[in-house]
Amino acid sequence: MLTKDHLDRIEVVLISPRNPLNIGAAARAMANFGFTHLTVVAPFEAHWREAQSAIGAEELLKNAKRTESLEEAIAECTLVIGTGTLVYRKAEQPAVIVPELGGRVTSELGRGGRVALVFGSEKHGLTREDLSYCHLLAVIPTDPRQPSMNLGQAVAVFLYELAGRNEIQPQLPVENAVEASPLPVASGELDRLAMMIEEAMLAAGYSPKGMQAANRHDVRLLLRRLKLNAADTRRAFGLFRRMLHKLKR
Amino acid sequence: MLTKDHLDRIEVVLISPRNPLNIGAAARAMANFGFTHLTVVAPFEAHWREAQSAIGAEELLKNAKRTESLEEAIAECTLVIGTGTLVYRKAEQPAVIVPELGGRVTSELGRGGRVALVFGSEKHGLTREDLSYCHLLAVIPTDPRQPSMNLGQAVAVFLYELAGRNEIQPQLPVENAVEASPLPVASGELDRLAMMIEEAMLAAGYSPKGMQAANRHDVRLLLRRLKLNAADTRRAFGLFRRMLHKLKR
Repeated sequence: MLTKDHLDRIEVVLISPRNPLNIGAAARAMANFGFTHLTVVAPFEAHWREAQSAIGAEELLKNAKRTESLEEAIAECTLVIGTGTLVYRKAEQPAVIVPELGGRVTSELGRGGRVALVFGSEKHGLTREDLSYCHLLAVIPTDPRQPSMNLGQAVAVFLYELAGRNEIQPQLPVENAVEASPLPVASGELDRLAMMIEEAMLAAGYSPKGMQAANRHDVRLLLRRLKLNAADTRRAFGLFRRMLHKLKR
Repeated sequence: MLTKDHLDRIEVVLISPRNPLNIGAAARAMANFGFTHLTVVAPFEAHWREAQSAIGAEELLKNAKRTESLEEAIAECTLVIGTGTLVYRKAEQPAVIVPELGGRVTSELGRGGRVALVFGSEKHGLTREDLSYCHLLAVIPTDPRQPSMNLGQAVAVFLYELAGRNEIQPQLPVENAVEASPLPVASGELDRLAMMIEEAMLAAGYSPKGMQAANRHDVRLLLRRLKLNAADTRRAFGLFRRMLHKLKR
């Protein structure tokens, strides 16, 4: 689990992004998962910062660093993680799949380190030169027929895995109110409903005499299996009573 | 672990996407993780399909379905999962965080079901009406200060969690026997039952005109919450049809 202090020691580094929309998307994902440090290395677009206004990530973009080289961007970092696929290259450093990355990152942060997550340019990903600065290559398991991810989406998946997934057991009533807290329904009430349904079945000519016992048994089981709450039961009772009333006229 | 056959029974549904780039991004993520069935509901852009040429997802986009309504898009599905955040709403159905979604999906596929993953429009996400078609709301744990994700990135995270990540993870334990065993019921079947119940309500004078929309909404939610199996659904349909027939005479 990443603390605020941990998140503060993770840098997201984008190398020469071509499309300003991708910078915005990366920033947006960072804001979604609580990251704050973005560095853009030698962006193609001169006015990349001004061009951007990713929703909810304005502050983050305003504070983003810009460097001319990767070397400079990661100078303070103790664990540099390159990202990409192994389909087009042979790694010259240890490779790890993203689901196994969390442990490496938290242990590095735990011993006071600073971690960089480095994403290559849209077109080619990280170069061999870029990768030579990386301690580790991290790979998202993708379909070999279409292994290469969109930059903004790859960033989102990495940050989800590192923070979203491991972190916030959110403000979620995991099973929600409707299922978790229905008012219990007494067995007798279910039986009254069952009887009303049976009468309606008979009145509608749905249940032949010979099937009456079997149907009664089935309805009784069904009503219990459905986990009706008190409101459901009341409503169903009202509806069937109403229909029965009409049917009998 | 999702097999080819499993992936073939998962539908990605985008409701009224405004930005063609987001449709392309969703398609790209699908290709990255081996998904093939995309449905776009009432897109804003008339020429959305032609407008798109997401790298590596051209085929997928060409085969994408287009429907006018969500109801139609998910008619064949037995487990409909809405996506979004709980920050802006209170769920009317069970909610689950994405890291816990895999088990639900694999168990549904394991018993022969068909799963839809439904994403709302960029601006507002899923509406209350959209959500009433969903058995489950799945939530990506995000920072409460910036909870709302970009559409393409949210799709990527979901598909990564379901396929990319699960590919290499041991299979999650199937939930519980009661839930796992009944034959799944397609969403369209539940809707036919709901319509029949509504007709019966009207014919019996149970549902005044002013309450019709609210009752329809409630019944739709109720039928999903009850986890009816195929036999239950058939039987309830038969009973209500029969009663309706009599009521109308």
